[in-house]
Amino acid sequence: MLPALKNDRLLRALKRQPVDCTPVWIMRQAGRYLPEYRAARARAGDFLTLCKTPELACEVTLQPIRRFPLDAAILFSDILTIPDAMGLGLSLNEGVGPKFANPVRTPADIAALPELDIDKDLSYVTDAVKLIRRELNGEVPLIGFAGSPWTLMTYMVEGGSSKDFSRAKSILYDDPASAHTLLQKVTAAVTGYLKAQADAGAQALMVFDTWGGSLSSAAYQEFSLAYMQKIVAALKADFTTKDIPITLFTKGGGNWLETIADTGCDGLGLDWTVSISEAWQRVGDRVALQGNMDPSVLYASADKVVAEVSRIMREFGNSPGHIFNLGHGIHPGIDPEKVGVLVDTVHKESSR
Amino acid sequence: MLPALKNDRLLRALKRQPVDCTPVWIMRQAGRYLPEYRAARARAGDFLTLCKTPELACEVTLQPIRRFPLDAAILFSDILTIPDAMGLGLSLNEGVGPKFANPVRTPADIAALPELDIDKDLSYVTDAVKLIRRELNGEVPLIGFAGSPWTLMTYMVEGGSSKDFSRAKSILYDDPASAHTLLQKVTAAVTGYLKAQADAGAQALMVFDTWGGSLSSAAYQEFSLAYMQKIVAALKADFTTKDIPITLFTKGGGNWLETIADTGCDGLGLDWTVSISEAWQRVGDRVALQGNMDPSVLYASADKVVAEVSRIMREFGNSPGHIFNLGHGIHPGIDPEKVGVLVDTVHKESSR
Repeated sequence: MLPALKNDRLLRALKRQPVDCTPVWIMRQAGRYLPEYRAARARAGDFLTLCKTPELACEVTLQPIRRFPLDAAILFSDILTIPDAMGLGLSLNEGVGPKFANPVRTPADIAALPELDIDKDLSYVTDAVKLIRRELNGEVPLIGFAGSPWTLMTYMVEGGSSKDFSRAKSILYDDPASAHTLLQKVTAAVTGYLKAQADAGAQALMVFDTWGGSLSSAAYQEFSLAYMQKIVAALKADFTTKDIPITLFTKGGGNWLETIADTGCDGLGLDWTVSISEAWQRVGDRVALQGNMDPSVLYASADKVVAEVSRIMREFGNSPGHIFNLGHGIHPGIDPEKVGVLVDTVHKESSR
Repeated sequence: MLPALKNDRLLRALKRQPVDCTPVWIMRQAGRYLPEYRAARARAGDFLTLCKTPELACEVTLQPIRRFPLDAAILFSDILTIPDAMGLGLSLNEGVGPKFANPVRTPADIAALPELDIDKDLSYVTDAVKLIRRELNGEVPLIGFAGSPWTLMTYMVEGGSSKDFSRAKSILYDDPASAHTLLQKVTAAVTGYLKAQADAGAQALMVFDTWGGSLSSAAYQEFSLAYMQKIVAALKADFTTKDIPITLFTKGGGNWLETIADTGCDGLGLDWTVSISEAWQRVGDRVALQGNMDPSVLYASADKVVAEVSRIMREFGNSPGHIFNLGHGIHPGIDPEKVGVLVDTVHKESSR
């Protein structure tokens, strides 16, 4: 038996219900800007060991919760666990970025991709979720997550990070049928993966479409959003996940807020290039909005952080349905004290 | 006496007047994807020598015009000539990116920036413009260009390329007065530089705001667009430049098309993340639209290039005011034959 949730601000805001103050969490809140994270990682040896050892993943997930009065924890993991489980051979080295030993480039490669048995192939993730839920002891809700099918496809095809996604885009344009086959397989895995996280105890879900913004508007709808839509539809049609709020975040997706909201997602992540008041006018009657401070503001002095947080809070206004966050992951070089200033300012400004 | 212009499609389209077929040019059309460019650069020794030697800049400017039936030439140069002329000590090395020996980081650095005498400090650029106009012999118009003040500021402060613009953004947020002082100085130089190019013979002008899309919506308006607005206003108020069409291009600026059009610019550059039909609905009554094919489409086979060019042409429709282009510079690895296919398809599709 898990204890009742003591802080439900995030879940209420995702349903656009009134809250006592605006919930806040930070993308990559468990990460390199925290000295205790760097120590844990040094003990683990490498990033993947952190992800694959439930006790360590639990420890680093909880680190920012212990330090700051955040309103949510997010599973410490990586979006590339799925292709790794499919046999692509992931390695993650600082400075180099992710690498796959066996990238997926031909129709034969795509055909050979195995169907995953999440509870077996990714049990380290569901085990971590269960452990974190226990350790959180109802303090705040736990967010589970996955990468979007298109974002995973870019890494799977390129074999790592890419500047212009030349290989992945060549498949999109030259052989769209193969691209769709690959995306369907990945979508099935992502859907199962998110369901498994919810079944293990994740109380909200998020899909990170880091590279959707690299696509043309037409290609985005066909190759990225259509598959996120399938994921949302599958989760909403499933008895065990239909009430778990799901947030979609496409970095660089400001042009497409309406069609993203049309998927039926509960929350919509905004990067910092979007005006949150304009976003609210466009889709605020249908979804909660998460965001959207420029992560680079945290390089500035504490009083400037306060000023910018306050500006965004004022810009959003008093409507329900705001989850404060950065517009992208926190930079590793940020002083943790600035995060404390951010969190306190969000709570103070919204409880006036 | 310069010969009369034989192909005025670009200039007509920029004024949203009817054309016999849609004009097309390619950002970075004089560049590394062309073997004749690579040969010229090898002879010159380095990129900056190409820029700073009018005969060589003229030669590479004309290379794509000789190879393809393009509707415009664009001055071969670099956006960083202005900070170089201000004494920052530019070096450009392939693979490393631009570097400044003397970046601008303190209020004292900003105060010490000299006012430029364009005709003296950047005479190699105006000499190149004059020479290119002569050599073009009226075949197609010549586009002059500059980087936007904010984009130049990022390089000047960071000392080169940057992933998150931490130093430049720290100045924006911590010391906005100093940021404005720097931007005002750069704006004066950019304005004079564009005027000098027009006086030397450039028949259209363009401002590249490569990094405007890295800013929050509020910061974009204050620190990037406001200065491009000043440039447009100054050129439109000047007797010698008031009729020279000017195009503003903010990569990642799809959220801000209305305010960009409000500057009074003639053309608006679109990256490939924007739907060109939606852009037309938003601002097509006020500005010509330039763009917007994903440069990565050129990695695909010729028939797929035809298909995507045709799709964008259909999406724009039959209204006046389209200048076909990529949504960003052409990638160095592209097969030049694909550019030929692109240009021919634009002309064929639009003259039906």
